[in-house]
Amino acid sequence: MDYIFKSNERSSKILDFHHPHQLKEGLEGFSLDLPDHPEPLEQILVDCRDTLKYGVKTGHPRFFNQLSSGLDLVGLAGQWLTSTANTNMFTYEVSPVFLLMEEVLLKKMQSIVGWCEEEGDGIFCPGGAVSNLYSLLVARYDFYPEVKTKGMCALPRLALFTSEHSHYSVRKAAAVLGMGSDSVQVVPCDERYPSPEGLFVRGQRGSTKEQKGNGLVPFYVNATAGTTVYGAFDPLTAIADVCDRHKLWLHVDAAWGGGLLMSRRHQGKLQGIERASSVTWNPHKLMGAPLQCSAILIKKRGLLQECNQLCAEYLFQSDKHYDISYDTGDKTIQCGRHVDVFKLWLMWKAKGSEGFGSQVNKCLENAEYLFKQLQRRADFKLVFESKPEHSNVCFWYLPPSLRGLPPGPDTNRRLHEVAPQIKAKMMEEGTTLIGYQPLGSNVNFFRCVFSNPATQHEDVDFLLEEIARLGSNL
Amino acid sequence: MDYIFKSNERSSKILDFHHPHQLKEGLEGFSLDLPDHPEPLEQILVDCRDTLKYGVKTGHPRFFNQLSSGLDLVGLAGQWLTSTANTNMFTYEVSPVFLLMEEVLLKKMQSIVGWCEEEGDGIFCPGGAVSNLYSLLVARYDFYPEVKTKGMCALPRLALFTSEHSHYSVRKAAAVLGMGSDSVQVVPCDERYPSPEGLFVRGQRGSTKEQKGNGLVPFYVNATAGTTVYGAFDPLTAIADVCDRHKLWLHVDAAWGGGLLMSRRHQGKLQGIERASSVTWNPHKLMGAPLQCSAILIKKRGLLQECNQLCAEYLFQSDKHYDISYDTGDKTIQCGRHVDVFKLWLMWKAKGSEGFGSQVNKCLENAEYLFKQLQRRADFKLVFESKPEHSNVCFWYLPPSLRGLPPGPDTNRRLHEVAPQIKAKMMEEGTTLIGYQPLGSNVNFFRCVFSNPATQHEDVDFLLEEIARLGSNL
Ligand SMILES: Cc1ncc(COP(=O)(O)O)c(C=O)c1O
Ligand SMILES: Cc1ncc(COP(=O)(O)O)c(C=O)c1O
Repeated sequence: MDYIFKSNERSSKILDFHHPHQLKEGLEGFSLDLPDHPEPLEQILVDCRDTLKYGVKTGHPRFFNQLSSGLDLVGLAGQWLTSTANTNMFTYEVSPVFLLMEEVLLKKMQSIVGWCEEEGDGIFCPGGAVSNLYSLLVARYDFYPEVKTKGMCALPRLALFTSEHSHYSVRKAAAVLGMGSDSVQVVPCDERYPSPEGLFVRGQRGSTKEQKGNGLVPFYVNATAGTTVYGAFDPLTAIADVCDRHKLWLHVDAAWGGGLLMSRRHQGKLQGIERASSVTWNPHKLMGAPLQCSAILIKKRGLLQECNQLCAEYLFQSDKHYDISYDTGDKTIQCGRHVDVFKLWLMWKAKGSEGFGSQVNKCLENAEYLFKQLQRRADFKLVFESKPEHSNVCFWYLPPSLRGLPPGPDTNRRLHEVAPQIKAKMMEEGTTLIGYQPLGSNVNFFRCVFSNPATQHEDVDFLLEEIARLGSNL
Repeated sequence: MDYIFKSNERSSKILDFHHPHQLKEGLEGFSLDLPDHPEPLEQILVDCRDTLKYGVKTGHPRFFNQLSSGLDLVGLAGQWLTSTANTNMFTYEVSPVFLLMEEVLLKKMQSIVGWCEEEGDGIFCPGGAVSNLYSLLVARYDFYPEVKTKGMCALPRLALFTSEHSHYSVRKAAAVLGMGSDSVQVVPCDERYPSPEGLFVRGQRGSTKEQKGNGLVPFYVNATAGTTVYGAFDPLTAIADVCDRHKLWLHVDAAWGGGLLMSRRHQGKLQGIERASSVTWNPHKLMGAPLQCSAILIKKRGLLQECNQLCAEYLFQSDKHYDISYDTGDKTIQCGRHVDVFKLWLMWKAKGSEGFGSQVNKCLENAEYLFKQLQRRADFKLVFESKPEHSNVCFWYLPPSLRGLPPGPDTNRRLHEVAPQIKAKMMEEGTTLIGYQPLGSNVNFFRCVFSNPATQHEDVDFLLEEIARLGSNL
């Protein structure tokens, strides 16, 4: 409890950084070693305290490092109750209530996406990367059901399309599923967006026709609603048109952008998502649900079950006395499955849909505020001049030594080193935390993201002052 | 808290069963619907209470339904702290302490398996099914690294071997990975065990040589240490010999049996496991860690990283100021990864290795006690006459109408219906819970498993009396 309050206190440090070897050698009696004999209860309590002490306070209002942040108290209570119930999601027998809650949540999310009553299936799974993997798995099965028994050898060589700014989990999934990462056609972006025609015309290996010439058969397109770094929305409607024309599976990765659907003000940015065959949506990002909480939504009913079921009789007996359609265990690629739904359900009860909406609006307002501050300042430079679409704001800090230098490779080389140096100092000081990365031709820049509704304007001001302070002598 | 004490009280019900439609329609003001507007805090508390009320008390000492049961208080505290810390396992930056704990736990588990200092890699992942999937993924990569880019089309057609009593997740993984379930050669068992030679000589589709004739190339064998239903241990040493001879990857699925390694008395049953190339071990089963907690251990270092890494620069920058070998995120097929290690680490501190040992012994003693009771009684019949190897005990209840009937198809047909009928009544009454299934030529039988150290002999006695009571008029 004390920890929770401290997390929210601006004056407390976000992290108390130590290098791996320091933590391993043991700090003030904090030893990671596993004993043969029990340790006394007192020591256990000290261990708990130290674990929190040397950890990172992701709930701190000045933590801007990751898409998941904040510490929602109702969500946390939900998580605690889930831990106490300590059960699995495979059958109605051991999870009657949680399985029904999953159904209610999936239906609600599907109706928000814009699917009609008769459409929609899905499952909660351990993170957006796994949700994306499901989309590819199910799409493949829909086009080529023989893959389940005969494997990829029985199929033509497949091609799938995704933009260069999409999440790497799509490529990972292609490798895992035995398609090989070469089957992924990475579509270049104009600044932030892939051109929908480019999906085919400018795909690395040429157009759909050429793909066919190469013996590659296109079947799947991943469009991103809210890219990881820039927070950009791919043009969904135009991409859906291309998919319709070529009869391709359209997956929308809205892991990060899905939360905007909760806001009347911002949901228009996802127009076209209702035409997707599948959608990834992570309530553990913008909606602030504690980790992990991610859903894969699939438009066509029954596919998920057919694709994955093996009917292990020891678990899924057909002679049970209740409606076994709730024994969802055979829909998944897991066996035991953690209960990720209760905390979200409870948060929904406590906030209502409108509560999520205002929370999302708050995050995007913070981004706009940061954007305006950056516009005004000479010591910072925005990566994009236009207003942010999501809560991502990308920028460079220009230390005194770089201000006024002509743009060019030499300035860029020096600018590239600024963010890592500031970040290193920031981790030592532990007052705020933000991430950086290079992307395409842009050298290392900071990416600020807002997903914690506890963050205020003063925290945004603090971030800029702190970066300027830490970088002032570079 | 109240709930936790109730869970341990024998007089409380394990479940208060309602059919899906009853729960959906709403019971005494418990509605699953998601509101637009916030509900008052009072209602939220009532919702929490109702969720627990209609759920299943897996921590109850008379819950014998699943391999995961019990409610370890230190583990629970660990889970609560984890939820409060609400972070991800991808980089040292956001999870310094938890990543080091993961390393310490993996090393410890590897040394218990019997690997030497220089060997061993691994990762905690969401359940044993996913751990098994990793073993197949990494084995494939080790034999054919080109699969990562070129996919299964570039490979010969593969064959993998597993016994008919092994967990279905191995077959599921083969389908997911694009090998197809046809590549899985299911080896029949003599009663409980596959014959190691049978792996090849009696594999459904014939011997290794024939496989080669078919164009199938054997590369992977899954041996089970503790089968799901019978709790049997495949003969690991003999299987390892076959694998050595044919240069095959040996995976040992010790999801359920791994816990026995903690007990000096029982660890001998896993002799040969040190020769495995990979091992699945679920502390969330026999060791009583709260769900989810499963590890995949891989003998050869570096393979996991090579197999899965894509080097997404926005997450895994190489210009960080600390030792980035702790940024394990690129080893996984996930992106965000839930912290499953802390509760296990904390339990280990609180119990020591020896505490886990006596807990395991306790579970196996309960199994022996049940076995002895069943031997003595005329209204029950054991599936196997020999002493249980693990904590699984399998048996039939013989209702008065079936006692003394000659064995044969007719008796079997009637016996097959006994367990489901008793189970249905048991769920309505909610005083105890146990699973049943048919397997091979054995018609529906009960499988009792012990993994909750709170279970006492009186609970075992109660189970038998309750089955006899519920089945007395069948
Ligand atoms: C666009 C996008 N998709 C998918 C993911 C993966 O989500 P998770 O970390 O829950 O696996 C991320 C994570 O950052 C993301 O930004
Ligand atoms: C032998 C065996 N392997 C793997 C698994 C899968 O484990 P999990 O439920 O954690 O996915 C089980 C689960 O019962 C099992 O018994």
